[in-house]
Amino acid sequence: MDGERLSTTAITTAKEVFDLLRDELAAMEREFERLSASEVDSITEIAGYLREGGGKRIRPALLLLAAKSLGHHGASSIRLGAVIEMVHTATLVHDDIIDVADIRRGRPSANTQWGNSKCVLAGDWLYMQAFRVALEERNFRILDLLIGLTQQMVEGELLQMESLGSSLTEHDYYELIYRKTACLFRVSMQLGCVLAGASPAMEKALGDYGRNVGLAFQIVDDVLDLTASEAVLGKPTASDLREGKATLAVVHALEHGTAEERADILAVIDDQGFERVRHERILAILHRNGSIDHAIQVADAHAEAARENLAMLPDSEFKRALLWVPDFVVSRDK
Amino acid sequence: MDGERLSTTAITTAKEVFDLLRDELAAMEREFERLSASEVDSITEIAGYLREGGGKRIRPALLLLAAKSLGHHGASSIRLGAVIEMVHTATLVHDDIIDVADIRRGRPSANTQWGNSKCVLAGDWLYMQAFRVALEERNFRILDLLIGLTQQMVEGELLQMESLGSSLTEHDYYELIYRKTACLFRVSMQLGCVLAGASPAMEKALGDYGRNVGLAFQIVDDVLDLTASEAVLGKPTASDLREGKATLAVVHALEHGTAEERADILAVIDDQGFERVRHERILAILHRNGSIDHAIQVADAHAEAARENLAMLPDSEFKRALLWVPDFVVSRDK
Repeated sequence: MDGERLSTTAITTAKEVFDLLRDELAAMEREFERLSASEVDSITEIAGYLREGGGKRIRPALLLLAAKSLGHHGASSIRLGAVIEMVHTATLVHDDIIDVADIRRGRPSANTQWGNSKCVLAGDWLYMQAFRVALEERNFRILDLLIGLTQQMVEGELLQMESLGSSLTEHDYYELIYRKTACLFRVSMQLGCVLAGASPAMEKALGDYGRNVGLAFQIVDDVLDLTASEAVLGKPTASDLREGKATLAVVHALEHGTAEERADILAVIDDQGFERVRHERILAILHRNGSIDHAIQVADAHAEAARENLAMLPDSEFKRALLWVPDFVVSRDK
Repeated sequence: MDGERLSTTAITTAKEVFDLLRDELAAMEREFERLSASEVDSITEIAGYLREGGGKRIRPALLLLAAKSLGHHGASSIRLGAVIEMVHTATLVHDDIIDVADIRRGRPSANTQWGNSKCVLAGDWLYMQAFRVALEERNFRILDLLIGLTQQMVEGELLQMESLGSSLTEHDYYELIYRKTACLFRVSMQLGCVLAGASPAMEKALGDYGRNVGLAFQIVDDVLDLTASEAVLGKPTASDLREGKATLAVVHALEHGTAEERADILAVIDDQGFERVRHERILAILHRNGSIDHAIQVADAHAEAARENLAMLPDSEFKRALLWVPDFVVSRDK
């Protein structure tokens, strides 16, 4: 463990990680652009709009780091990075239709620009294109991972819809965010392992790392949705509560608060808005019950578990970057 | 050709073809039911509703006939028949969202029962499940065909959206219905060929057969939409014109009619309804220009071409059924 702790100090900024992957991420971006062009204009337009909306590209970065930490440096990891980003983009465009979202990443969502119908089809097309490109690798394991993943994600979104407006157990919450978010992080790491020909034990360990980073990522995302300002988020605050979604801090307060506090939270979830109970009241309830702290502690524990999942990985600058990622994920403020 | 003409007389009713495939179609139906069950209840409900809505199962029947006419009788053709029907169902549920359809196969469409959001996700899930089952065959050619197919279909639907409310050339119309319909018929035949290990020449010929049958099928579908009664169709008549879709007979009348007739047709397409010009007026224009007859002649020509595509196939009861299918497709009245 000392060796690991030492190596975590070696990389301390996002810029260092970005420098390490600069060429590959730039190549991934070009692949993503090239692959999301269709002879049907509206697909190219919608895909271009979504691609230019940015995002942290954390998933392809994880795939690249997994592959490189295991000695694979080929072009397949760049193509599969673009595939992962296409799958991620496809889920976002369909989710925005479902959430009737107006805003994504500080800009109007694609559905407000092109309408739901074209966005349903653009999402479908991005899924198919991702599979088509993955299929070119001629590796059944890659396809098993990708198709299993997308099915889990779609099921997660449906489970979330079914739970809207009602309270959840912590267990249900973890199940939901595993499917919605952590599964994609897990598969990104596993794809890097498959490309590098890693052992099943290594694939399991790095897959668990991805799962833990993904869970930490989503828990922090959900806390930020409750506590950060609209200017920082690039979308309205407390949008989860406004949609009737109970997230970890809220689930904690429901389990630990007074009957009155519980009733106030349930009123907001049930109303899908702050008509009867104000946002400030909810934040006060969460703070009084230590619910925000609880959520952050759970995220920290997953970040720590993720670092421990790297124990069997040989030391390298790529491993040091992977050791840094969980810290980045839990300490980000947007 | 005499031998072929003789063999076409051997099968003359849908019941004979159904009897030939009775066990396999029943097994396909059970597979479809088993495979469209999910641990997420709403998926199972929506998929069940769509499956029970019926449909002619003509696509899996073609796949089975292609495989069997080439000597393949294994379980893979049953599973892939279910896969084709799942892909078909996924496109229908997304198309109904896009067309804001209220009625499908004489019943309320799934989106009116479960809402657009769940139907977007149920469609996504059916696509993924179709690919997952196909992936179990561990055959890259099967995946190439299926994923290429779904991408073509999605592009076709988008091209159709882009052309709504405007006139088309005949060429554009054929391109559209190839992607929307004929491509799935073609791939159904090709999958049967892949399972049977057919030569590239045979796969090409039977793929062309599927394409021709599919084109004939869609042309007749579009004529029926213009001419049949609501009771027969199970959906409102002239729904294509009401959605601003120009189909073959309409395209023909636009090219051959008087300036006044052309203006009347364009008014209906532009209005997406019969407010300014009545449905009866459009039918009179189509009849006066022989446009309905033209569409039926084109469908007949594709049916004849389909029969000719079977020339190299060895004679069998399955070939005789394939020779019968084009007649069935062009002579159906709903």
